[in-house]
Amino acid sequence: MSDKTGMAPIRDAAATGVLSIDAMGGDLGPEAVVSGLALAVKKIPAIRFIVHGDKPTLDALIAKRRGLSDHCTVRHADDIVAMTDKPSQVLRTGRDTSMWSAVEAVKSGEATVCVSCGNTGALMAVSTIRLRKLPGVNRPAIAILWPSRNPSGFNVMLDVGADIRADAEDLVQYALMGMSYARNGLGLDRPRVGLLNVGTEENKGRTELKDAHDRIEKVAVDNGFDFVGFVEGGDIPGDRVDVIVTDGFTGNVALKTGEGTARFVRDMLAEAFRATPLSKVAALLAMSSLKRLSRRIDPRRVNGGVFLGLNGTVVKSHGSADETGIAAAVGLAWNLSEAGFSERLKARVAAATATLEQTAPEAET
Amino acid sequence: MSDKTGMAPIRDAAATGVLSIDAMGGDLGPEAVVSGLALAVKKIPAIRFIVHGDKPTLDALIAKRRGLSDHCTVRHADDIVAMTDKPSQVLRTGRDTSMWSAVEAVKSGEATVCVSCGNTGALMAVSTIRLRKLPGVNRPAIAILWPSRNPSGFNVMLDVGADIRADAEDLVQYALMGMSYARNGLGLDRPRVGLLNVGTEENKGRTELKDAHDRIEKVAVDNGFDFVGFVEGGDIPGDRVDVIVTDGFTGNVALKTGEGTARFVRDMLAEAFRATPLSKVAALLAMSSLKRLSRRIDPRRVNGGVFLGLNGTVVKSHGSADETGIAAAVGLAWNLSEAGFSERLKARVAAATATLEQTAPEAET
Repeated sequence: MSDKTGMAPIRDAAATGVLSIDAMGGDLGPEAVVSGLALAVKKIPAIRFIVHGDKPTLDALIAKRRGLSDHCTVRHADDIVAMTDKPSQVLRTGRDTSMWSAVEAVKSGEATVCVSCGNTGALMAVSTIRLRKLPGVNRPAIAILWPSRNPSGFNVMLDVGADIRADAEDLVQYALMGMSYARNGLGLDRPRVGLLNVGTEENKGRTELKDAHDRIEKVAVDNGFDFVGFVEGGDIPGDRVDVIVTDGFTGNVALKTGEGTARFVRDMLAEAFRATPLSKVAALLAMSSLKRLSRRIDPRRVNGGVFLGLNGTVVKSHGSADETGIAAAVGLAWNLSEAGFSERLKARVAAATATLEQTAPEAET
Repeated sequence: MSDKTGMAPIRDAAATGVLSIDAMGGDLGPEAVVSGLALAVKKIPAIRFIVHGDKPTLDALIAKRRGLSDHCTVRHADDIVAMTDKPSQVLRTGRDTSMWSAVEAVKSGEATVCVSCGNTGALMAVSTIRLRKLPGVNRPAIAILWPSRNPSGFNVMLDVGADIRADAEDLVQYALMGMSYARNGLGLDRPRVGLLNVGTEENKGRTELKDAHDRIEKVAVDNGFDFVGFVEGGDIPGDRVDVIVTDGFTGNVALKTGEGTARFVRDMLAEAFRATPLSKVAALLAMSSLKRLSRRIDPRRVNGGVFLGLNGTVVKSHGSADETGIAAAVGLAWNLSEAGFSERLKARVAAATATLEQTAPEAET
């Protein structure tokens, strides 16, 4: 139970199981990344990595962990993408960075999934330029797992910040991609998809949302998912839906508001336990139960935004991820790799694009 | 401490102190509303109410609470606005409702502030039609208080759902109105105002946000507030700002996501305490500390969205508010009434509109 990541059990073991790791991007440096890889290897002995970054540093760090070098191929990169680098600048001058090299290994087919804790904007830009968008996808999206009341323990939400806007057609694509992710990532046969709005009545909200509502309803049957219609912010951690579809601006605000609120409540709780001698004793007695709670809502356990809509899968880990967070992102990448997710998503989008072209309103054909 | 509402102490005692109460709109009916009024009277003996609704019912409920009738004038209304009534329908046929009557008493000057737990859309529609928008205000907004790390215990956020969109000019108005509310409602001399975005760099986000950023920066100095620039979802419960400005769609999603997350964490915590015999003992020992925490993050204590931008102030209480929630909304209304908030806001908007017209970009003059 304690190391459950909410991922479905591995079913297809056909893939080669090589992940491409950008070891240089995170706030805590390559040491945290290599520790995370070592943690992941303990849980998944079959895993293999191509690790990108400064070779002398990485070789030394890997050598310190017994047996880890058997799982790793180190690929040297001279340069690092900084958290403050602008995406456009990285596209122009970033060919020698560990991030670029890590994405390149997915492009060349040497690895199935790329993992990086680097700068989100730069990673999205490099991934889009090198892997290219799937035919039929206008805007790629970032999907995250959100702790919820559902039996799997999680919901999927997208887009949480790949783009700052989305039109009706993008939202339909997000519904399809999110559904495919929930199926392969959470192991749900028939995911329930909802469209985020400020009310649940069908006549409410912005025009593009009403339009997207009708179009998602149409594609739901053919694509084997249930469309529950409009959902509200309160449903994001709830059990009414499995996949929450929204534009990247709203999704990013919701994500950060939720994280901030959870952190606020946690800090207030810690303060409450320090308040009196009795409450301090209580904190000791409740320790194991509180640890369980803390694990349930620990953002490190669901570390990993997945870029959807490209030819290949990229997992973006939190910049501040420690070894636990890195191991979670690597575990997620492994599960997606083993499920053959990139290929399945591609097939899903291709089939749906054909259907969409048939059902699109006259004015748009 | 235990009944602190985060409101500034009352300083101007000049106003007449009559509040207009729609007693029929809430989910729990007039009984909860009258109980809330009785609670408020205990804390604020000078308070007086005009109570709108079914007179026989209200007379009977008020008579049951000793001394309450001295504070109340009951005004009969035949009809009730239901939670499912559409705003347009209420505007056409709602003249005999308790909601309409309650707003009318502010319009006529008999009361300073109106409080209702009714249907938000209908209340906003009736308030806008009867009280009319302040000169210079295009879109009224709903402002709420959000539990935060700030010394006052709260931040102000607006708009949380009066409208589903806002252009740059609206956002500038929201900044001014939210600042005035923070000054009069939270007693802050120099509120710090932030504009909600998906990053804090100045070049990020939608065009209207960049435009609003520059314009709010210009009006900040003349209006005595600090503009901290862009803020993110995580700052909503934080201590970087006092006022968070956003459009009604984003604000509503953030509000409901935050509420949903807090509820989720609270439920998980309760579950953790029920998990083992030891944790059950711990819950008993920590009871008083946990109650304090629960009070700190209790949404009922900050019950009351305030409609800003109209000729007169309307407080919207949660539909599901119980007597504690009603009393909090009434206490908020009282503080705003005593601060002469409606007049101050009007003066602020008038002065700023003049400045704005001078500083507006050429293309828009």
